[in-house]
Amino acid sequence: MIKLGIIGGTGYTGVELMRLLALHPVARVEVITSRSEAGKPVAELFPNLRGLVDLVFVEPAIDTYRDCDLVFFATPNTTAMSQAEALLAAGIKVIDLAADFRIKDIPTWEQWYGATHACPALVEDAVYGLPEMNRAAIGKARLVANPGCYPTSVILALLPLLANDLIDPASIIADCKSGSSGAGRKASLGTAFGEVTESVKAYAVDGHRHLPEIREVLRSLNADADLVFTPHLMPMVRGIHATVYATASGPADRVQTVYEDYYRDEPFVDVMPAGSHPETRSVRGANVCRIAVHYLPAANRYVVLSVEDNLVKGAAGQAIQNMNLMFGLDETTGLEAPGIMP
Amino acid sequence: MIKLGIIGGTGYTGVELMRLLALHPVARVEVITSRSEAGKPVAELFPNLRGLVDLVFVEPAIDTYRDCDLVFFATPNTTAMSQAEALLAAGIKVIDLAADFRIKDIPTWEQWYGATHACPALVEDAVYGLPEMNRAAIGKARLVANPGCYPTSVILALLPLLANDLIDPASIIADCKSGSSGAGRKASLGTAFGEVTESVKAYAVDGHRHLPEIREVLRSLNADADLVFTPHLMPMVRGIHATVYATASGPADRVQTVYEDYYRDEPFVDVMPAGSHPETRSVRGANVCRIAVHYLPAANRYVVLSVEDNLVKGAAGQAIQNMNLMFGLDETTGLEAPGIMP
Amino acid sequence: MIKLGIIGGTGYTGVELMRLLALHPVARVEVITSRSEAGKPVAELFPNLRGLVDLVFVEPAIDTYRDCDLVFFATPNTTAMSQAEALLAAGIKVIDLAADFRIKDIPTWEQWYGATHACPALVEDAVYGLPEMNRAAIGKARLVANPGCYPTSVILALLPLLANDLIDPASIIADCKSGSSGAGRKASLGTAFGEVTESVKAYAVDGHRHLPEIREVLRSLNADADLVFTPHLMPMVRGIHATVYATASGPADRVQTVYEDYYRDEPFVDVMPAGSHPETRSVRGANVCRIAVHYLPAANRYVVLSVEDNLVKGAAGQAIQNMNLMFGLDETTGLEAPGIMP
Amino acid sequence: MIKLGIIGGTGYTGVELMRLLALHPVARVEVITSRSEAGKPVAELFPNLRGLVDLVFVEPAIDTYRDCDLVFFATPNTTAMSQAEALLAAGIKVIDLAADFRIKDIPTWEQWYGATHACPALVEDAVYGLPEMNRAAIGKARLVANPGCYPTSVILALLPLLANDLIDPASIIADCKSGSSGAGRKASLGTAFGEVTESVKAYAVDGHRHLPEIREVLRSLNADADLVFTPHLMPMVRGIHATVYATASGPADRVQTVYEDYYRDEPFVDVMPAGSHPETRSVRGANVCRIAVHYLPAANRYVVLSVEDNLVKGAAGQAIQNMNLMFGLDETTGLEAPGIMP
Repeated sequence: MIKLGIIGGTGYTGVELMRLLALHPVARVEVITSRSEAGKPVAELFPNLRGLVDLVFVEPAIDTYRDCDLVFFATPNTTAMSQAEALLAAGIKVIDLAADFRIKDIPTWEQWYGATHACPALVEDAVYGLPEMNRAAIGKARLVANPGCYPTSVILALLPLLANDLIDPASIIADCKSGSSGAGRKASLGTAFGEVTESVKAYAVDGHRHLPEIREVLRSLNADADLVFTPHLMPMVRGIHATVYATASGPADRVQTVYEDYYRDEPFVDVMPAGSHPETRSVRGANVCRIAVHYLPAANRYVVLSVEDNLVKGAAGQAIQNMNLMFGLDETTGLEAPGIMP
Repeated sequence: MIKLGIIGGTGYTGVELMRLLALHPVARVEVITSRSEAGKPVAELFPNLRGLVDLVFVEPAIDTYRDCDLVFFATPNTTAMSQAEALLAAGIKVIDLAADFRIKDIPTWEQWYGATHACPALVEDAVYGLPEMNRAAIGKARLVANPGCYPTSVILALLPLLANDLIDPASIIADCKSGSSGAGRKASLGTAFGEVTESVKAYAVDGHRHLPEIREVLRSLNADADLVFTPHLMPMVRGIHATVYATASGPADRVQTVYEDYYRDEPFVDVMPAGSHPETRSVRGANVCRIAVHYLPAANRYVVLSVEDNLVKGAAGQAIQNMNLMFGLDETTGLEAPGIMP
Repeated sequence: MIKLGIIGGTGYTGVELMRLLALHPVARVEVITSRSEAGKPVAELFPNLRGLVDLVFVEPAIDTYRDCDLVFFATPNTTAMSQAEALLAAGIKVIDLAADFRIKDIPTWEQWYGATHACPALVEDAVYGLPEMNRAAIGKARLVANPGCYPTSVILALLPLLANDLIDPASIIADCKSGSSGAGRKASLGTAFGEVTESVKAYAVDGHRHLPEIREVLRSLNADADLVFTPHLMPMVRGIHATVYATASGPADRVQTVYEDYYRDEPFVDVMPAGSHPETRSVRGANVCRIAVHYLPAANRYVVLSVEDNLVKGAAGQAIQNMNLMFGLDETTGLEAPGIMP
Repeated sequence: MIKLGIIGGTGYTGVELMRLLALHPVARVEVITSRSEAGKPVAELFPNLRGLVDLVFVEPAIDTYRDCDLVFFATPNTTAMSQAEALLAAGIKVIDLAADFRIKDIPTWEQWYGATHACPALVEDAVYGLPEMNRAAIGKARLVANPGCYPTSVILALLPLLANDLIDPASIIADCKSGSSGAGRKASLGTAFGEVTESVKAYAVDGHRHLPEIREVLRSLNADADLVFTPHLMPMVRGIHATVYATASGPADRVQTVYEDYYRDEPFVDVMPAGSHPETRSVRGANVCRIAVHYLPAANRYVVLSVEDNLVKGAAGQAIQNMNLMFGLDETTGLEAPGIMP
């Protein structure tokens, strides 16, 4: 049995890790920490886990994780970077669900996150945890940077196009729509029900932290890649819909086959039939990214539609997928459940 | 032109007062205060008012209201009670949208609101601002206690039954469903979109502050009146649906006529045809309470369905209705707009 | 491997059966029928099942089910009653998720369902599939009437009170709030998004088909039981919240223990701590009924709060629970997954 | 008093016309028709109008409109084109809220709407009812083609850029998000609550009927204009958010001023301060299009955010604005009410 710790378990990614791991056959959460809720049973905060999870939140402390094989950071940004080194030194693998190790270029990271990085050397070691790009490296990694929710949906939408050199790499526009859970579980006016329901708005149009993350990954595939990225808040809790536009740079008639071939062996990327329009609800609760590619001849543009549950394939599910790889398990272990629809 | 002040204008009742008063033909908001937002244009906080409202939030201070004919308190509970006296002394009428003057029995108020009342003498003077009960008194009042949102819907549902002695007064159960705006405009985890959407829950089953308010009003009609009151939070922003049960104490065959007669001249209570099921959305944004009365012969019970927009007939609209009465205007002035549906 | 058939698989209970059974370790759906969608892959209609379900809808026909061990009817009312006999004769067990076999009293059934019952004799044989009442009988049954969604939540809320004779059995009021999926998956104006969102309404106040079902079951426990039952439509898709009122007929101080004792060994009924307010979202997707019991001394009334996912414990999940019992499996097989929250 | 008729008044644009006109000071609806609901009071179908609207639906017939000064078609596409001629011949002005007269190029219209146009000659006469483009012509028109909901939001977003020649006209991408009311008031599975809530999807990516409408209007400003248009369905009922991308063709530093100047005198277009992100809820129920323009230097692209209520500025409100112009009234008559927020 693989022994797991979760640091900062009171957020939506924390409860989602607990939900998904509750039935994992060979991994078990042994420790879950929270400064604010120490002493409280996890199932008191998250009653969906009543009867399945007996854990009590404890104060975070390095000794607490001694027996863990792997620790997930489900903390705010800048927490993991100051603790990861000690955990790794103790032989504990680490997956950070926040952003501390996602961007290789330290000045870029420091600019967007407004902080000095606490362990730049570790960043180099960290593997960007997108199995569809870095499966082998993840399998050997001791430190995985779990990708952001938006980046997962946008990068998976673009991989086949970039890998096959089918687009003008500087023409990309990613218009993304997210449920409110992307903002985390917290008291804030901006995510109050009365402010979010029955309304749509864009935010951070002039620059969102996921932009440099996406850009760096895309440039690892094509040095000229660049994009406009516009996040929008939707009146729903779970799900991201990325609508990605790019100008074709050659014949487009084989694009459906290109996508199907590219993702043929991927357990968690589902290329839909030509002409499809995936719905975010089809992946609710499931570790799947569902993609449909369209080509518009008049405009010579691709429109790629990509949906995921931001808390699953965009966060906790992908983290478990990475964990499975890091321990040599079948990648799909514990992640087979279909989405809930309706 | 009647000159108005709003104290504490950054909440949902504040913006709703501004929205409804924006087109009032003979009353105008001259001052709106907020400690936290002083200096900021109202329309920056509430962009729906852009182009219609030029006011800027100012610090609250008694001098600020000197020229006002009437001041609305859209503040949290316990604010109005410490300021009303000075305003009244300055010849300014007062409508409190919070609970400071709703309950005549001071010990009861102090028990439920956990505070010592700052001006018990004024409570006696205050008129409970339900025009369908106290129209004449409101017209002569200088201090009006605007009813709670739940009490408005429940009391209007019961008035014809109690006034006509048609029920066992101790048999009342009011099962109420409210949108999240009843909790106010604030950062709180409990009203976050992710916590409220796609879910229903009861709250305060063992005692809610609106219980003593309803009870006191009902007892002014029948000394034996008592009720069970259960509020529920709905995944919507506006609207209250009260489902009120009471055991019949005599023949029930004329009940539809009783309701129609009772409310025949009321501009803002709409008795629906026999057999109806009112929807909260039919009163969205409108100063109307829509009621349908059912009688179940087998159980010998009445089931009264009563819907209102908690921010309008349950708060800001009713406050303006009271203001109209206090200044001898036609009660419906500025309140004629129909609900928005869908 | 237990071989299953689903008749009428295009509704919400159909897809929910498929979702839950997709990972069942010892049962597999072999046949799924639909007149309207015959020839279409199931996963085309329900893309959440892509990659997990390869079945294609086929025309319903008795020969189709020859190899099945059990058939679920996920059809509209009055379908199962004309086909069950042939299936049973062929040695195939039957679970009807509709209402054909739920009510023992044939005239009552015929009055509420507006039809002549096609096989009254079978009704007597049928076992009402509420394991918490009829576990042993279900284990031996060949025909199970899966309970209605509202009845499940209301009966489970009341069982401990009735079984322990703690209430006036004629004083019951069940005020129930349901998501729109209870109305099924179909084109209808009344369940259109624009008609349901941001609104609450009661319906069928003067009589709903689940009333005689609940009444008959309650009377099997106490001949004097009767109730008022008021269903409401909520702006959400999944979940039922039953708020059940009853007058206490004796001391109430031990009621929390009574509930805990009554349901101590039940895998799918969760009695929450005293003072709790369960949320429907805590059971979303899970086969659980979560209950909290309150006692109001002033009114001498119990208020029982009971939540379930109407498509799971209120339909498909309970059907699988019954199936497990009918085949001697552990009752929880395939039903262990926690709810999805948020 | 201007006498109005509404043909086909049972849809969402019909009830919205009634709601907005209920308080119009100089225009009154005298006739409202419906084949399916003839004989039924309007307020029975739309209870928000109870007490304000006494009309009864009547069968449509030319004689019915004899006394009308203007008739609105709130009918499905292809209805107005066969009746407009007779109305105009009778001296009755016509505003078509459907698409029959929006596209000047008849073959294009016939291709996208799959029908032979019944009165091509009238199309030439019709004025495209976007006051911000065609105010003078609307004032003199007898037949106005009310713009589509998406086109209104997209064209208003682009007018200042195209009029000032600030963009590459072929680089436009309009990623649009709409509430479900855009699909009309009808029984359809695709717009059922259970299918729409908590989900986002694109639709008609390969071609939507509003594409040729937008394109034709844009080309009247710049012959080289072309666009990609992607509509998405949001889990909300009202509101459109258009996110419009275009490549800058020259210096962008004055763009905020360009927008403010362009719309300075427009009563119903609100240019927000630089850096803003408009929310659809800020225009709920109001006849306003709220716009924010952003420029991204790195990508040299404009991102224009444009929100409207699809039923108001995108349909019924704009129709009344056009009616006001056609009768020489102040354009804002009856349209001054602010949006409802929250």
